[in-house]
Amino acid sequence: MASLVGGRPRAAIVASGSELVRGDRTDRNGPFLAAQLLRLGIEPARITVVGDGRGDLEGALADGLRFDLLCVSGGLGPTHDDRTIELLAKAAGVDLVVDEALRDQIEEISRRVAARLKRDYADFAGGVQKQAMVPAGALVVGVAGTAPAVVLEAGPCVAIALPGPPRELQTLWPLALDTEPMRRLRARGTALVRRVLRFYGVPESAVAQALADAGGDGGGVDVTICARDFELHVDLFVEPGAEARADELESHLIESSARFLFAREETTVADLVLGLLRGKGLTLATAESCTGGVVAARLTDVPGSSDVFLGSVVAYADELKTGELGVPEHVLRTYGSVSAETAAAMAVGARKRLGADVAVAVTGIAGPGGGTEEKPVGLVFVHASGPMGERDVRLDFPGDRGTIRNRAAVAALHLVRRLLTEP
Amino acid sequence: MASLVGGRPRAAIVASGSELVRGDRTDRNGPFLAAQLLRLGIEPARITVVGDGRGDLEGALADGLRFDLLCVSGGLGPTHDDRTIELLAKAAGVDLVVDEALRDQIEEISRRVAARLKRDYADFAGGVQKQAMVPAGALVVGVAGTAPAVVLEAGPCVAIALPGPPRELQTLWPLALDTEPMRRLRARGTALVRRVLRFYGVPESAVAQALADAGGDGGGVDVTICARDFELHVDLFVEPGAEARADELESHLIESSARFLFAREETTVADLVLGLLRGKGLTLATAESCTGGVVAARLTDVPGSSDVFLGSVVAYADELKTGELGVPEHVLRTYGSVSAETAAAMAVGARKRLGADVAVAVTGIAGPGGGTEEKPVGLVFVHASGPMGERDVRLDFPGDRGTIRNRAAVAALHLVRRLLTEP
Repeated sequence: MASLVGGRPRAAIVASGSELVRGDRTDRNGPFLAAQLLRLGIEPARITVVGDGRGDLEGALADGLRFDLLCVSGGLGPTHDDRTIELLAKAAGVDLVVDEALRDQIEEISRRVAARLKRDYADFAGGVQKQAMVPAGALVVGVAGTAPAVVLEAGPCVAIALPGPPRELQTLWPLALDTEPMRRLRARGTALVRRVLRFYGVPESAVAQALADAGGDGGGVDVTICARDFELHVDLFVEPGAEARADELESHLIESSARFLFAREETTVADLVLGLLRGKGLTLATAESCTGGVVAARLTDVPGSSDVFLGSVVAYADELKTGELGVPEHVLRTYGSVSAETAAAMAVGARKRLGADVAVAVTGIAGPGGGTEEKPVGLVFVHASGPMGERDVRLDFPGDRGTIRNRAAVAALHLVRRLLTEP
Repeated sequence: MASLVGGRPRAAIVASGSELVRGDRTDRNGPFLAAQLLRLGIEPARITVVGDGRGDLEGALADGLRFDLLCVSGGLGPTHDDRTIELLAKAAGVDLVVDEALRDQIEEISRRVAARLKRDYADFAGGVQKQAMVPAGALVVGVAGTAPAVVLEAGPCVAIALPGPPRELQTLWPLALDTEPMRRLRARGTALVRRVLRFYGVPESAVAQALADAGGDGGGVDVTICARDFELHVDLFVEPGAEARADELESHLIESSARFLFAREETTVADLVLGLLRGKGLTLATAESCTGGVVAARLTDVPGSSDVFLGSVVAYADELKTGELGVPEHVLRTYGSVSAETAAAMAVGARKRLGADVAVAVTGIAGPGGGTEEKPVGLVFVHASGPMGERDVRLDFPGDRGTIRNRAAVAALHLVRRLLTEP
């Protein structure tokens, strides 16, 4: 299972959680860790999702220890069915020991939590004792909530146990990388340089065809093409020495879809739009019907967005489109609330009413109900308005309510980007 | 790996695809199949994601054949790296044979595709030949595109191979269930009854303690406790005959945290709030600062929310708090935009300005910047206002910007729920 001598190290990822193996929730940690490993030149060989039952988890951990690296997520909590640490120690053939410093740290955190919740610390004491146990020889790299992340050398394998909540895992991951066992393992990987191309509006098959026309990947350049958040994310992973081939492929991919390329770095369109506006000294507002706040939520998810983004009117009811955004009643009556005319009036109204330089408006039918033959579910109108002019687009999205709403929000952000960048 | 005699059948799921194991894309088939199996009384024991490399895929399939059921997704296509059928036959120790009827069917489909794309059928012939090969003794249950789904009895294990695209897999799944080997396997499953408890505001460790105090799970009742979206989701999976024990555990869990229990069914707080308002004939609006539209987005994510939810003002800039929500300037000046007074004025203003019966307002510091000693990052004020009165809460959330925003949004929805349900 481990790599051959001299080959790239190979990793197994184990995501533990009954809610995951039962399909109640989709594992996000496996894909995150796999993508991270790939960049470090470590090959993600398998991702295994198991419940927290003793036999299944122990089997997966023992299996994982046959790789060069084992990354485990979940099962570090205080409850009876959090068994990762115990079973990792067992699979690695080492004892469980109490880490005193860790115990003090978790106790301090738990006492603060108890005080905040106005509960007796005694409720937490059992959990504290349990969470302070680590496999003998393990390094504690950090604590998320009250869950410790550990790195353990188990024979030729390095094992990392991380908490299950994705944000906590992502916070502690860099700390785990920054340990001596992981530094040694990483030195054996061929760190690949990643080049990033981000497209919007081009089908996956067209980029795949362009890649094939250019001779395909290989020769030290691995290309992944991935539809994500309604954009197309193309990554080139380049081995040392393959830069010339990478240049060639990259140029070909860019030329074949040049007008759809919007970024050559890892960024979100929300970030990009806020940066463009900031650079021009302009402010932004949104007027949303079918997206119901999703565009505003995506913009305000970016730290520091408040210097550019003023706010939004979510006008779900037609009365608010008139009252708060000044959409003329005759426009609603003549064209309907889902129309290019209403979208335009919403955007213009938002600029005026909210005092923003630029505004984008979205109106559409997210479904599942409300569609007609003339205006089916998935029909969305987006309008962007600013001192440089107007832009609008009519879209027909397939998919369910959530897909349509998110796709419409992404379309709105890209329309603002085009308003700001295209003449 | 398989179940003991008389136990529930246990299943392994293998999702094959390099884009999955590299983390470029998240596997959706594993969770779908797991949830389907659970309902049939078959226990999903593990979900393994592997690439399409020969060794890794063969290992995962051989492993999976040790369970009562093996479900494989992906790797059924026409290209060289689609190896599921070949490797499944190898792992099961049977030959590959051409299924003539299948061959004719795939050829007919491929000729139509070739004609539509104006390409020579010869380009497709190799793929047709390859896709018509199945393990000896396998049942072909259907074709998606040109990919056949098969069911194979391999000793005590039933193996099902399904195509990777989720829509195709979901279309062929019922056909695979409707085969003789699967009917026999399903007859051995014990369908479990699931009971659901949803808490808000109680720590995971307290519920775990209550469970331990009641004697823990087992005896035909499996309990999962899972912190999810800042709520605590407790599920009891009950075998036939264990109803009395389940009643006992359920009562104890409810009594120990009664005031935090908000639902005994699978529902979201947004759904619950909209249902409560609908029942009372009341409308809702939100006024959001630090959540920036997340509360509105969560509400409008619910189909049919438009009969209750009127809209929202996202007042990120103070000028909008005054201009759009009528927050008096002296309130902002005296107490600051992040204060209980401003939250109250925002909620009252939203009711009035947006013409809603009930409104909830959120203001806080989501970070990472903007915190002071007096008003640190994570400080959030929520205020709910309606004809039945007022409710407010001051919160101090740990975590990063995304966590604080989402937690504040969940808190806002629960505050509305309490306004509507508690005297």
